[in-house]
Amino acid sequence: MTTQKRTVIYVSDGTGITAETLGHGLLSQFEGTEFRPLRFPFLDNEEKVRDCLARINELSRHEGTRPIVIMTQTNAEYSAILHQAEAFFIDLFDAFIVPLEQELGTRYSRAVGRSHGHANPEYNARIAAMNFALAHDDGVSDADLKNADVILVGVSRSGKTPTSLYLSLQFSLKAANYPLIPEDFERGALPSRLQPFRGKLFGLSISPEQLHRIRNERRANSKYASLENCRYEVAAAEKMMRREGIKWFDTTAKSIEELSVQLMQELNLER
Amino acid sequence: MTTQKRTVIYVSDGTGITAETLGHGLLSQFEGTEFRPLRFPFLDNEEKVRDCLARINELSRHEGTRPIVIMTQTNAEYSAILHQAEAFFIDLFDAFIVPLEQELGTRYSRAVGRSHGHANPEYNARIAAMNFALAHDDGVSDADLKNADVILVGVSRSGKTPTSLYLSLQFSLKAANYPLIPEDFERGALPSRLQPFRGKLFGLSISPEQLHRIRNERRANSKYASLENCRYEVAAAEKMMRREGIKWFDTTAKSIEELSVQLMQELNLER
Repeated sequence: MTTQKRTVIYVSDGTGITAETLGHGLLSQFEGTEFRPLRFPFLDNEEKVRDCLARINELSRHEGTRPIVIMTQTNAEYSAILHQAEAFFIDLFDAFIVPLEQELGTRYSRAVGRSHGHANPEYNARIAAMNFALAHDDGVSDADLKNADVILVGVSRSGKTPTSLYLSLQFSLKAANYPLIPEDFERGALPSRLQPFRGKLFGLSISPEQLHRIRNERRANSKYASLENCRYEVAAAEKMMRREGIKWFDTTAKSIEELSVQLMQELNLER
Repeated sequence: MTTQKRTVIYVSDGTGITAETLGHGLLSQFEGTEFRPLRFPFLDNEEKVRDCLARINELSRHEGTRPIVIMTQTNAEYSAILHQAEAFFIDLFDAFIVPLEQELGTRYSRAVGRSHGHANPEYNARIAAMNFALAHDDGVSDADLKNADVILVGVSRSGKTPTSLYLSLQFSLKAANYPLIPEDFERGALPSRLQPFRGKLFGLSISPEQLHRIRNERRANSKYASLENCRYEVAAAEKMMRREGIKWFDTTAKSIEELSVQLMQELNLER
């Protein structure tokens, strides 16, 4: 199958992040096409809108296939101008916002920062969660573990840090993480600092082969990265989690998105 | 205006994150309604689908208003079952995926992990960018600044860390950040480690009042957090950036999403 190339243009009078996130989620599931993203955010006056229109048409002529335009433009007049472009449109406003206005009986309004400005408690909770995740990364601090929503445990490089940060940024959860290290396995006990918080612990494991590969990128040919040591640590960590009754996921074939959502289901965490 | 409450239900045979991100972007712009999110991810067999249908109808009866269902369900049969629910539907599949299939001439396929699995180079780039941002947070390391896409500078707590992490997770950019500290102002020169990378520097500034508030949460009543010191540091940092020809944004009223998109525009950064 030959790969076709298509330009995807994110157009918005705001940041365009809603459009882009949607586009990424949708388009990544189409095989056989390589998408090239272009962004036109903050189109909030007619001059910018007309420049964008001209640019889309130029691309369309130049490439011989019409670009895919994914759009959140709240101004009806500007939206009409943009729709003159030779493009395939995914228009979030027409498709969803107009029907939502009817359903809710209120108007959609583009107030910059409404969804994520400093005055918004939800935004502040998200930033606080991220700061918490950073402060409690890799067992750096246990000052505030009692306020954690979840504490991820696992061997070094099993995916704890990216998962913690994603949980904080996407779901505003206070996610700490704590490494399980050879000293813990030799002692045959959970780190004592974690003992009071068993109900919040969740484990991440990984195949020894993948762990070996990941660690080798960091410290090539070290004992730490050796396949033998990775096998030992993973087996010891799983044995400890089994004995302590800590549930865990295998992260080997899972993305941080999948891990995060499954974890929230397991722990019954809702914001 | 009284606030109405509505339940929003994210339904998917995948993680539901595309649906949820879209829902969050759309619904946050409707004033006067408080939305309560519920998630039904991974609905990939008929039993789960029928349980979900029953739950939606139960909520609808119980609450007296129909829930808003935001859905990415790729199985047509399951989709039809879910559409029997008493709900207001935002169906990404019907609205966009079917027309996209026609436009692209290929089929949408739900392959778990396709969009963000370990086998996907784009996913790996994103995780690498996040590791880079963490390793180069707050001047911790300058080992690899030459490979940074951007280096954010600014006084402590001006928003560098959250912006760096967001740039990495959302746009796969390698964003380092480096603090400007009183010693730099006294010496009257940029940190010497940054000198070779002037083209990559971008500044973040903030109002002294907000900086004072933020620092006070960390270290109440310290000299570091005092309004007087915040005024001094902000003025000195802006003076230095002006003299060195470093562009900067005022982060006081901006979200990390807005900052990130504007920064990419300024620096002409595309993935």
